Amino acid sequence: MKKKITVIKVGGKIVEEKESLDNLLDRFAAIEGYKVLIHGGGRSATRIAESLGIESRMVGGRRITDAETLKVVTMVYGGLVNKNIVAGLQARGVNALGLTGADCNVLRAHKRPAGEVDWGFVGDVDSADGAMLSKLIEEGIVPIMAPLTHDGKGNLLNTNADTIASETAKALSGNFDVTLTYCFEHPGVMRNPDDATSLIPLINRESYKQLLADGTISGGMIPKIDNAFAALEGGVSKVIITKADAIEGASGTHIIEG
Amino acid sequence: MKKKITVIKVGGKIVEEKESLDNLLDRFAAIEGYKVLIHGGGRSATRIAESLGIESRMVGGRRITDAETLKVVTMVYGGLVNKNIVAGLQARGVNALGLTGADCNVLRAHKRPAGEVDWGFVGDVDSADGAMLSKLIEEGIVPIMAPLTHDGKGNLLNTNADTIASETAKALSGNFDVTLTYCFEHPGVMRNPDDATSLIPLINRESYKQLLADGTISGGMIPKIDNAFAALEGGVSKVIITKADAIEGASGTHIIEG
Repeated sequence: MKKKITVIKVGGKIVEEKESLDNLLDRFAAIEGYKVLIHGGGRSATRIAESLGIESRMVGGRRITDAETLKVVTMVYGGLVNKNIVAGLQARGVNALGLTGADCNVLRAHKRPAGEVDWGFVGDVDSADGAMLSKLIEEGIVPIMAPLTHDGKGNLLNTNADTIASETAKALSGNFDVTLTYCFEHPGVMRNPDDATSLIPLINRESYKQLLADGTISGGMIPKIDNAFAALEGGVSKVIITKADAIEGASGTHIIEG
Repeated sequence: MKKKITVIKVGGKIVEEKESLDNLLDRFAAIEGYKVLIHGGGRSATRIAESLGIESRMVGGRRITDAETLKVVTMVYGGLVNKNIVAGLQARGVNALGLTGADCNVLRAHKRPAGEVDWGFVGDVDSADGAMLSKLIEEGIVPIMAPLTHDGKGNLLNTNADTIASETAKALSGNFDVTLTYCFEHPGVMRNPDDATSLIPLINRESYKQLLADGTISGGMIPKIDNAFAALEGGVSKVIITKADAIEGASGTHIIEG
């Protein structure tokens, strides 16, 4: 039987405010067994870019990454946010190691070709090195992954953190029984974000089609759930979408294949 | 017999300009066997701080690190400079891993108490985890170390890169036969920086005293050589001060105990 591992992705807002970050790190430190944390940092990137006089251009909630913006996200995701999480976890007895996809070549990507939108230095993942990650994890190291990849030609690339999470979870599924948890500001996928009782506890492929068709699921939630199904197809055992204060629990929206 | 390892420290100027960085990475990639790179990044930190409206205050060439400046050096050293080196080395077939002292708890420090100068979030190293570093290195990983440490209480600390280099070299000397090379813009320690033929090929404790007394060695060179002797005392086999385009060679100034 494979050993269990918990792969948790947290959005920018949670890791960028001291109180919610401290809370998250306490909860993450308390999770037993093998674990990995993937983080965002978009709000800080936007703020730092603004202070540097660099305009943040977003399309459908995603960042267009020109050369100057790439420098900002490299600083903010790979430096500021990542290293503060690492130091915070070390203080809690977790042997954290901050990684971008370039570190140990764990996530290789290619620059997305310009189409209707030229995304600039944005990477689509080609491969994740599950063997290298597993080796580190089995040494007792807890990877903390920033949403950056590299192309193997010396270029860093900005990559959606949800994608990093699903690619990492899939790559680990060869060696581990993986639970992938996406956490964000809501208790899960909601029929009505303003109504806490409207949580959808379970989504499978059939119900997803319907929820898309009737518009219940839209916008930034679509790539999140697409990533969840991609992860299940890739060998991940379970995907959960939940609130940051429930990363240990069985609440939230569970996404399963059938 | 212990296996040989080369620990190289390069200053900010070398890693912050594309041409000299590419040249350095080519040369570093060509070094055979185990190796570690420690880098600075002060000029970029000063430039980014300026763009963010944060004043850089230096005393004796060292940075006073208030809370805002700590964010800048975390971004620049841990993110921008470190990750570009890592990506550049991966492109050259080197399995680089960027580390701050917080990552895997490799360098623990304490905040320097305020004395004549309040340095702010500046760390003096308490311990380096040679066992953890050796384990990573023996896996074929090449650590790329940013000049940041942590205090184990969740705080990152700005730490002189020369000190990081000597502490790392000492910590590795239990498992490796260590050559520590400091490279900078001159061919070595010079009697007269404007005269390329005035290189001092060898310094020992006796000649160092004399060179200090007659003012040949002064300013920023003093902590560099103090660190070199500390490294030799701590078990390092050889310390070399040389130019970045001679990191493989036997030129430069060799510093030995006796």
